[in-house]
Amino acid sequence: MRIVAADTGGALLDEEYNPIGLIATAAVLVEKPYRTATVSRVRYADPFNYDMSGRQAIRDEAVLAVELAREVKPDVVHLDSTIGGIEIRKLDEPTIEALSITDRGKEVWKDLAKDLQPLARKFWEETGIEIIAIGKSSVPVRIAEIYSGLYTAKWAIEYARKNGEAVVGLPRYMEVKILPGEIAGASLDPREGGLFGKIPADTEGIEWELYPNPLVRRFMVLEVWRKD
Amino acid sequence: MRIVAADTGGALLDEEYNPIGLIATAAVLVEKPYRTATVSRVRYADPFNYDMSGRQAIRDEAVLAVELAREVKPDVVHLDSTIGGIEIRKLDEPTIEALSITDRGKEVWKDLAKDLQPLARKFWEETGIEIIAIGKSSVPVRIAEIYSGLYTAKWAIEYARKNGEAVVGLPRYMEVKILPGEIAGASLDPREGGLFGKIPADTEGIEWELYPNPLVRRFMVLEVWRKD
Amino acid sequence: MRIVAADTGGALLDEEYNPIGLIATAAVLVEKPYRTATVSRVRYADPFNYDMSGRQAIRDEAVLAVELAREVKPDVVHLDSTIGGIEIRKLDEPTIEALSITDRGKEVWKDLAKDLQPLARKFWEETGIEIIAIGKSSVPVRIAEIYSGLYTAKWAIEYARKNGEAVVGLPRYMEVKILPGEIAGASLDPREGGLFGKIPADTEGIEWELYPNPLVRRFMVLEVWRKD
Repeated sequence: MRIVAADTGGALLDEEYNPIGLIATAAVLVEKPYRTATVSRVRYADPFNYDMSGRQAIRDEAVLAVELAREVKPDVVHLDSTIGGIEIRKLDEPTIEALSITDRGKEVWKDLAKDLQPLARKFWEETGIEIIAIGKSSVPVRIAEIYSGLYTAKWAIEYARKNGEAVVGLPRYMEVKILPGEIAGASLDPREGGLFGKIPADTEGIEWELYPNPLVRRFMVLEVWRKD
Repeated sequence: MRIVAADTGGALLDEEYNPIGLIATAAVLVEKPYRTATVSRVRYADPFNYDMSGRQAIRDEAVLAVELAREVKPDVVHLDSTIGGIEIRKLDEPTIEALSITDRGKEVWKDLAKDLQPLARKFWEETGIEIIAIGKSSVPVRIAEIYSGLYTAKWAIEYARKNGEAVVGLPRYMEVKILPGEIAGASLDPREGGLFGKIPADTEGIEWELYPNPLVRRFMVLEVWRKD
Repeated sequence: MRIVAADTGGALLDEEYNPIGLIATAAVLVEKPYRTATVSRVRYADPFNYDMSGRQAIRDEAVLAVELAREVKPDVVHLDSTIGGIEIRKLDEPTIEALSITDRGKEVWKDLAKDLQPLARKFWEETGIEIIAIGKSSVPVRIAEIYSGLYTAKWAIEYARKNGEAVVGLPRYMEVKILPGEIAGASLDPREGGLFGKIPADTEGIEWELYPNPLVRRFMVLEVWRKD
């Protein structure tokens, strides 16, 4: 099975480790044996000007996933939204009403569906590929989350080159290592069966430290700074 | 403390990783230091003809656990059902009504209790050993789950010998390794403190691969096939 | 950021692994990179005469944390109570009523606040340091929990010297090792990013064994006994 998934993660942090805004939406192609991505794409957000309600994230994820899916023609597209694995192209008002989610969630999805349902229907009509809202149960969605962390580290390196340093929060229980010419990352949850990723990056002249976010258990902070 | 426990797990999967039916009920004797089984028994189900409601599983588990307990005379028997550690022999209608579980759960237990309560009462009268519905909190139940995964791997090997290959889903966050003459397995959750198991098996002429189930995070898929 | 936190854990167990009473309240100073304590303090309870309702624990934690905080002057004090990160000095009746916790929880907190709110207000007026009820989300609270496990092991050694042996339950998914001259401990959850601790202890003439509590998955039992 060939699956495209997308997720958004990584946050710029202030000095007290509070999130200012999210950084990276990643889309990935995941193929058997489903432990890493064979292709990945990123779209960076502006963390200083970020809609933290979550709607920006899901829209960006859908658009980026469709972009990648047009190229690589997967069997299915997974989005990180836990509404029961439903096909996005079928999300009309009666279907949303019938979901077993909160009333607030229904309002959000009625709003989101205005853009996403036509996008998914058009994509399905052209390619026959379904986009499903499978959420946290999907391994490719988790791999996309790990890649959003890798691209967050890359963003932090570029930010530190310009501004001297950057402090970012990674997605849940994952680590990154900044190595010569690449950034490597992995899940810290062995129950996931060894999920990991890596991306090429210019890491010359950069120092870094990774440590637990003291205010949010199971989340790591990455600090990056220019040498000298 | 010497504890007998039983659990059912492992599923035959179709090509899209959907479960067709469960495969193995395992009963185990667990003794201090409570990390593996000192004795194990299996009863295989027919995954092509399986009642997925969960009632077949709990009945098979009770019967197999009592069978093993008659032999090894433990201090107590643990079943994987989370109804508060109650003794099964005491499960009459008023007691079930008083449980803090769903109405649906009460109906299921009233039905189950028809067989299980007399079985447990008879067993207690003859041996003085209680059968308790302790559920996921029990380490021996988790060890039984790991053994159901080991026996699932054994079933897959035998199935592959006849049919060329088998694709099975293991119980939650566990791995298996097919070694010369045996199958070894272990929990992937280090918080459990190192739970593991092994069973003898004819593994000659078999190849295998283990990888994350892309649709169900934290569950592994085992593929087994005949060499040539 | 320099954080003081406190937590209570470790239980004396009877022969069937049931808790008799809690053993140790630990307060810790945690500094960047937030993986262990740089200073720790303990207050032992009498497990044979322990109020298991949880109120004794939270009071002991607040008092011990304030004691340590007076010495080491942290930026903030974290307590293990999940009422939304609220400042304890602001806990008057209308504020407690407005918390999204159970009615039972509100009654407990109205009672607790009688002692703790004046303590926190006085401490804040004198030092400007806030005491917040942040709960399980705090890494320093988890490190305090690990230290309560280390001190529980120390208590067990002293108890075994007098009484021959001791059987104690450690806080959730952590291990300890009794080494020459010290007790080392660590989280068993790698998602936490490598939290650990150690304390000096006279470990001469002591033998020990660590194994999973068969009745409470993800909790370890420590047995300690006198050699000869």
